[in-house]
Amino acid sequence: MAQKMKVAIFVKPGRIALDEKPIPEVGPLDALLRITTTTICGTDVHIMKGEYPVAQGLTIGHEPVGVIEKLGSAVRGYHEGQRVIAGAITPSGWSNACLCGVSSQDGAGTKHGWKATGGWKFGNTIDGCQAEYVLVPDAMANLAPVPDGLTDEQVLMCPDIMSTGFSGAERARISIGDSVAVFAQGPIGLCATVGAKLSGATTIIAVDRVAARMSISQKLGASHVVDFSKVDPVDEIMRITDDRGVDVAIEALGTQPTFEAALRVLRPGGCLSSLGVYSSDLTIPLNAFAAGLGDHTIVTTLCPGGKERMRRLMEVIRSERVDLTPLVTHRYKLDEIEAAYDLFSHQRDGVLKVAITP
Amino acid sequence: MAQKMKVAIFVKPGRIALDEKPIPEVGPLDALLRITTTTICGTDVHIMKGEYPVAQGLTIGHEPVGVIEKLGSAVRGYHEGQRVIAGAITPSGWSNACLCGVSSQDGAGTKHGWKATGGWKFGNTIDGCQAEYVLVPDAMANLAPVPDGLTDEQVLMCPDIMSTGFSGAERARISIGDSVAVFAQGPIGLCATVGAKLSGATTIIAVDRVAARMSISQKLGASHVVDFSKVDPVDEIMRITDDRGVDVAIEALGTQPTFEAALRVLRPGGCLSSLGVYSSDLTIPLNAFAAGLGDHTIVTTLCPGGKERMRRLMEVIRSERVDLTPLVTHRYKLDEIEAAYDLFSHQRDGVLKVAITP
Amino acid sequence: MAQKMKVAIFVKPGRIALDEKPIPEVGPLDALLRITTTTICGTDVHIMKGEYPVAQGLTIGHEPVGVIEKLGSAVRGYHEGQRVIAGAITPSGWSNACLCGVSSQDGAGTKHGWKATGGWKFGNTIDGCQAEYVLVPDAMANLAPVPDGLTDEQVLMCPDIMSTGFSGAERARISIGDSVAVFAQGPIGLCATVGAKLSGATTIIAVDRVAARMSISQKLGASHVVDFSKVDPVDEIMRITDDRGVDVAIEALGTQPTFEAALRVLRPGGCLSSLGVYSSDLTIPLNAFAAGLGDHTIVTTLCPGGKERMRRLMEVIRSERVDLTPLVTHRYKLDEIEAAYDLFSHQRDGVLKVAITP
Amino acid sequence: MAQKMKVAIFVKPGRIALDEKPIPEVGPLDALLRITTTTICGTDVHIMKGEYPVAQGLTIGHEPVGVIEKLGSAVRGYHEGQRVIAGAITPSGWSNACLCGVSSQDGAGTKHGWKATGGWKFGNTIDGCQAEYVLVPDAMANLAPVPDGLTDEQVLMCPDIMSTGFSGAERARISIGDSVAVFAQGPIGLCATVGAKLSGATTIIAVDRVAARMSISQKLGASHVVDFSKVDPVDEIMRITDDRGVDVAIEALGTQPTFEAALRVLRPGGCLSSLGVYSSDLTIPLNAFAAGLGDHTIVTTLCPGGKERMRRLMEVIRSERVDLTPLVTHRYKLDEIEAAYDLFSHQRDGVLKVAITP
Repeated sequence: MAQKMKVAIFVKPGRIALDEKPIPEVGPLDALLRITTTTICGTDVHIMKGEYPVAQGLTIGHEPVGVIEKLGSAVRGYHEGQRVIAGAITPSGWSNACLCGVSSQDGAGTKHGWKATGGWKFGNTIDGCQAEYVLVPDAMANLAPVPDGLTDEQVLMCPDIMSTGFSGAERARISIGDSVAVFAQGPIGLCATVGAKLSGATTIIAVDRVAARMSISQKLGASHVVDFSKVDPVDEIMRITDDRGVDVAIEALGTQPTFEAALRVLRPGGCLSSLGVYSSDLTIPLNAFAAGLGDHTIVTTLCPGGKERMRRLMEVIRSERVDLTPLVTHRYKLDEIEAAYDLFSHQRDGVLKVAITP
Repeated sequence: MAQKMKVAIFVKPGRIALDEKPIPEVGPLDALLRITTTTICGTDVHIMKGEYPVAQGLTIGHEPVGVIEKLGSAVRGYHEGQRVIAGAITPSGWSNACLCGVSSQDGAGTKHGWKATGGWKFGNTIDGCQAEYVLVPDAMANLAPVPDGLTDEQVLMCPDIMSTGFSGAERARISIGDSVAVFAQGPIGLCATVGAKLSGATTIIAVDRVAARMSISQKLGASHVVDFSKVDPVDEIMRITDDRGVDVAIEALGTQPTFEAALRVLRPGGCLSSLGVYSSDLTIPLNAFAAGLGDHTIVTTLCPGGKERMRRLMEVIRSERVDLTPLVTHRYKLDEIEAAYDLFSHQRDGVLKVAITP
Repeated sequence: MAQKMKVAIFVKPGRIALDEKPIPEVGPLDALLRITTTTICGTDVHIMKGEYPVAQGLTIGHEPVGVIEKLGSAVRGYHEGQRVIAGAITPSGWSNACLCGVSSQDGAGTKHGWKATGGWKFGNTIDGCQAEYVLVPDAMANLAPVPDGLTDEQVLMCPDIMSTGFSGAERARISIGDSVAVFAQGPIGLCATVGAKLSGATTIIAVDRVAARMSISQKLGASHVVDFSKVDPVDEIMRITDDRGVDVAIEALGTQPTFEAALRVLRPGGCLSSLGVYSSDLTIPLNAFAAGLGDHTIVTTLCPGGKERMRRLMEVIRSERVDLTPLVTHRYKLDEIEAAYDLFSHQRDGVLKVAITP
Repeated sequence: MAQKMKVAIFVKPGRIALDEKPIPEVGPLDALLRITTTTICGTDVHIMKGEYPVAQGLTIGHEPVGVIEKLGSAVRGYHEGQRVIAGAITPSGWSNACLCGVSSQDGAGTKHGWKATGGWKFGNTIDGCQAEYVLVPDAMANLAPVPDGLTDEQVLMCPDIMSTGFSGAERARISIGDSVAVFAQGPIGLCATVGAKLSGATTIIAVDRVAARMSISQKLGASHVVDFSKVDPVDEIMRITDDRGVDVAIEALGTQPTFEAALRVLRPGGCLSSLGVYSSDLTIPLNAFAAGLGDHTIVTTLCPGGKERMRRLMEVIRSERVDLTPLVTHRYKLDEIEAAYDLFSHQRDGVLKVAITP
């Protein structure tokens, strides 16, 4: 009889609850991880609220730090007991999308090898990481050993928010000397701010209204902070850039006002890099879009995954270019996960990210 | 007393008329061209209708083929009597936008060196080409000698529609083996179809409803044509691509339905390349946008100009890779320009482009 | 007792011979192909001559067209009896190199996930395709179904020379209107010529001395041919380009004279794309290199593989943009492979490529 | 009678001397700068030694910080008395090379618009900056106002070594998490180290043998320093990278040993970015080049110039991302220029850069 493990599952809109499931069987390409630390993502809150649909009973969570408990029969190059992380996105490596370099849209097993957001599996299409154990698919493409000396909390942001936030800067091809505006300074926006700094931006304008976030933002790299509850952020950014506009605007919230403001502060020829998860249609204002003649670029990005991505992000931590541990503001046991959701979903007590340990 | 020349000017919404103006003085960086052939663009019709505002009395037109009549005192490297073209967009070469490679947004003389659509000067911010003579600004950056043996009509499409249409393919970075859908097969859409073919696309789906245009489209490179008045173009393109979607969708009309359809037929990770001039806000449907998680790219492009661009486009003609003379369906004298506008603006008699000769 | 199959093996320098081996066991990620057509590559001749070392007894050949005979237990998405090809390069999909988009340098299983030329396995590090059966590793990343209606010979060039030749054009980022010189018009050089044309080059100068090859070259896309046995190719290319030089020079032979000539005909800021397999150190002449100040780019490329690459190349064939069957000049049974090597290695009888059928 | 100014001229191999010339006439596109600070470059020492030929009597120097004394009749957008810098490279903006984005190879006025290293004019093809006044050609493309509050010495590195060094990192397209080796830590190598850091590299290995340079290197961003006089740099870099090799190797000296070592430490698929000015042919070792099959890229770069480049570099200084004033180790009056050359050319007294003030 299979052993049981504790898991946090989606019960119904409004409720994520602690439950038990059997520890899963390990297929030939899989690895079973024993989770040592995980966290809750804003997307999990969307799931809890029923705004993003997943199957009832699914284990939630997509940010694993753990230890290899068991390897599939065809998996080579790892050993049990090894400390690893995997990305929130777990590409197969062998779909057409992966072989084209767009692995977050992994369509492994589909007719054409492409599937929108198909690389996001944990806590979306398969059981996730807010659990004592998680099964990692296509383990050889996804398990990234944690460098010696790094703690769980030091690498806890790599699987999702660091990868997502950095990609906002990377996809916009920020150059040395660029000016960048980042709309919203939640965990992903903060990581976009860091990514902009690491990419050589010299003017980095962070927009939010929570003083604590803006303060962290300045420590992590923002040269200017704009409190949108006090000033019009478009006017203020145009003032800061002396009416030039920014080279790159990063949207990190997923709303019409932030998307639209990002477009309005962009110089002709600039790039709007969108990271937010939207929940309704978007409007592109004609004048902000120069009637389609502004040589603008708009890019959207789903969190890049895979073991090489994780390796690189951990290198950023290991080299001490960035320390993201200040983002971990609260800690809970897996047993207390419902309390953790309650705090996190209500954004109480200045929470940025919570560390969950089974 | 200055000599006079015939010109076509914007009088008021609804009226472009033949008139007379003095032949302009030549500044140190300018060249005076004697126009031998020019044409009317869809944008000129927008101007005539008052949908795109220009100053009353402005000479219209931005597609010059001509002969150098006089060179500015500081212009080197050309001689009077030389046959040349200039692009619809005449970048200065020295603005910050130009020095960044975004010369269509040329902000020569502005505070920061950027100006939305600032590279488009002829018939927009300075007197244009539907005239006996036109003054070319920043002549050394803009005059491109016509290779021996090419006729005026062979190079007449280079200044605008060939440059614009090709850029739709180029900015999308089409790769060998890509599938591409082109929405609308007016002159610019036809050139985008050619551009897709020259870039190595293997499935090129042209969408229109005018049989004559679809017929030319097939001659110029379309592998499939879709008549949107008979079938739903999104369904049909998904059928043609066996539900995969296209790698690149090019919008060449400037309307919400074509923009939206272009997004709906795009595979995850694909690129929507927008060429149309829009006249109202655009809506991005949430599901077509994968809620912002589809790794999509949307690019807009204003016609690239400058002498090197013109040189390259004329090379395409000279090498016989493409023959665009079939697009010239009608010919008028400059004296008959009002009749030409009447025909062209009403899209009568299967008109694609009209050649105007002073 | 395992069934036997016929194979062509490397015996010792100077000798490739027909032999027998057991039909291999199929591992969980493998597929066993029954070869229906294969071919001999110039690289195989290097192997035969002992210039490129492989293990004695290794089955040679890396260009498979065949039918799936048996699938590994973990392979999904294919069925036995399906007609497929695989690339000469068979990336794992899951190495760090693959996850970075450099899959030809696949280091699956190595310490860091990178290995120089590690993606080339068939007939190099594992048994190859000049055999009745071949085992394809990482089948899900590598098997590409042949579109209905295409013959074996139509797709026979896809696994190697078409992929390699095209990559010479692709890696150089050829733009519409570029001038390109291709040094050597063997099978790979001919495919580079085709790739240049598909990428929009307008002046394509092919250099060789074999009249038959230059004739095919012109049919496939060359605008000019230069016989280097009659004229100095550098002088001639500078004459053709009116002393401008070419935007891109592709080296497709692997010798100092062709590499050096490619550099000498390059305009400042141009790209030398090298495809040849060299057998000795190379010299970069100081003046051809502008002392290191010419903004030059030199790129080398190993044949790209993987199923998405193969799908795209077969699309080029299916769409009739290119027909490479004229390259198949001779046909042999596998039993006659030694005669085929004799003909091919001595370049007798105008041979370009030989089709081998078990 | 024209007023005289002091200048440093090339007299003959081995001798640069103070002299007098008339203050030049200002052409319509020019600006006359009164130099307030300039410096000596390693290239100037090559010129002095006769290793790089220039005309006898030419004024040397290409790094101007100054004040606009007089503007040409066609120059708009500046005013006399304005503090500006211009790049070592002064592109016209209007040549074909400039319009292609390769402005350092500016061929303004040549047959095709391309000229190898043609953008380098100061102290090479026209009188340079080690003088009381210098004439800036194509002023509108080249004059970059100094932001308020920055001193001459703060921006003195922008015209050449900062632009060149950074371009070594930029042309290699360094990504966040890359490992980079920089060979030689003279002024340009130090700036390449800074550029690598600003581009997101996490392992930056600086190679030199001068302790003082390696010490500055660590302050500016190197994570490791390798003294090549004590260890084999190839072995040591492979040890540091745990045998993986580096993603990018930057050559900043211009010799065979550094070029070759850069290639040997490169991982497959990596990029060698060459900044050095070579003085003899180079050899590419066969094995370091993977016989041409390693998916390597080699790029060379001449210092990017133009006012937008200068604006961006001064933004890096203004934003306090970098302070390069520690590179100014010695200060001289223009009258003492011969002593400055003596010190600088013999690399005495730990000199990195000298500031020269007229």
